[in-house]
Amino acid sequence: MTGEGVGEKVLLVCGGDCTADFLRQVCTDFRPDRIIAADGALQVFRDAGLRPDLAVGDFDTIDPEILAAFSADGVPLEQHPPEKDQTDSELAMALALRGHPSQMRFLGALGGRFDHALVNVRLLLEADRQGCRCVIEDLLSRLFLIESGTAVRRDPSYRYFSLFPVSERVEHLSLRGTKYTLSDYTAQRDRNPGFLVSNEITAPEGALVTFSSGTLLAVLSRDASDQGG
Amino acid sequence: MTGEGVGEKVLLVCGGDCTADFLRQVCTDFRPDRIIAADGALQVFRDAGLRPDLAVGDFDTIDPEILAAFSADGVPLEQHPPEKDQTDSELAMALALRGHPSQMRFLGALGGRFDHALVNVRLLLEADRQGCRCVIEDLLSRLFLIESGTAVRRDPSYRYFSLFPVSERVEHLSLRGTKYTLSDYTAQRDRNPGFLVSNEITAPEGALVTFSSGTLLAVLSRDASDQGG
Repeated sequence: MTGEGVGEKVLLVCGGDCTADFLRQVCTDFRPDRIIAADGALQVFRDAGLRPDLAVGDFDTIDPEILAAFSADGVPLEQHPPEKDQTDSELAMALALRGHPSQMRFLGALGGRFDHALVNVRLLLEADRQGCRCVIEDLLSRLFLIESGTAVRRDPSYRYFSLFPVSERVEHLSLRGTKYTLSDYTAQRDRNPGFLVSNEITAPEGALVTFSSGTLLAVLSRDASDQGG
Repeated sequence: MTGEGVGEKVLLVCGGDCTADFLRQVCTDFRPDRIIAADGALQVFRDAGLRPDLAVGDFDTIDPEILAAFSADGVPLEQHPPEKDQTDSELAMALALRGHPSQMRFLGALGGRFDHALVNVRLLLEADRQGCRCVIEDLLSRLFLIESGTAVRRDPSYRYFSLFPVSERVEHLSLRGTKYTLSDYTAQRDRNPGFLVSNEITAPEGALVTFSSGTLLAVLSRDASDQGG
């Protein structure tokens, strides 16, 4: 992996739920090297008074005036035909991964059409295959894949910590530093889906997750009533 | 399968996104024999002026006054401790399946915490295993599992038709009656997630989906801007 962008932090924003406040906050906290907006996400950039480095999509869900304003402001637009084999977010993810970034925050991935959300969650695997640590974030949830031996930090703004097998099985799963601990458990993707849900990270050093095989999705979340927390 | 409830239509409402209007509309269209509310969903029943036949959950996310009002109105409350191995929606699904219903509409399954949404989508498999055709519905999306040979009806209020392999692979997938047709395709769950997304049902007799092995999730959806359509 050589060339411009290697090791960069990329912020990718798609057309799902994302508020101007949330976008501004993530920009401040994450400090991305590069910002990519997919299609309808240009609306939230306009609302937030922020400018992406690149916009991509078929632009069928964005007000043409907003599109024209960003174009006039020098934002490169990578336009694709609406008839294509990939969603706007897949195209945007491919573009975001082109520079071999090491970290990515992916906003506007959830909410809206659930078919889009399902595609976006699967894009975490694509980022992972290309060596990029990608985190999907909305107002209530933060999603990321974890490797065995990962310590998941305690973040007081998220009360809950849940795990989902992405592979058919996750073997010899152990969990420490959490309210409910586990030892040598075999998690199956399509059975007892709530068993690993709504745990809480209690240890100051975070939750330690180990397993011998399989792929795990971690979700930090909070109730809507805790949103300010 | 014998006893009360066999062949019934059950409406299950959990604490995710659901408006009073949407709840009323589904009640009118689906005409359930039995209505079950999980925890926070009691709020939307109150707003809609509707009464469930049963409420279930740990009731940690509902205003105690609303809970007391439904109880006084004779709604049986099945209360569980908050410390448990299942989510409220899993408990509610188990209860809803107890009577061996043949059909279920599942509202309030999406939106809110994404860990809950992921559990709820997996509950479609549980309903299916127990012989119940379950449909998850929110304002923009309708999700259900399909068998090979299923004709998916055209519904003008949903523009898009998407498919997702739930199993590792879906073999010999063919698709007719749609804008983009397929023949003898092998779909892999974790590759090209958007390839089967945003298709459209064009044939008056609906889309015909056939495959030789695997499990498929179908999603009908519309853009937020088409919500009234």
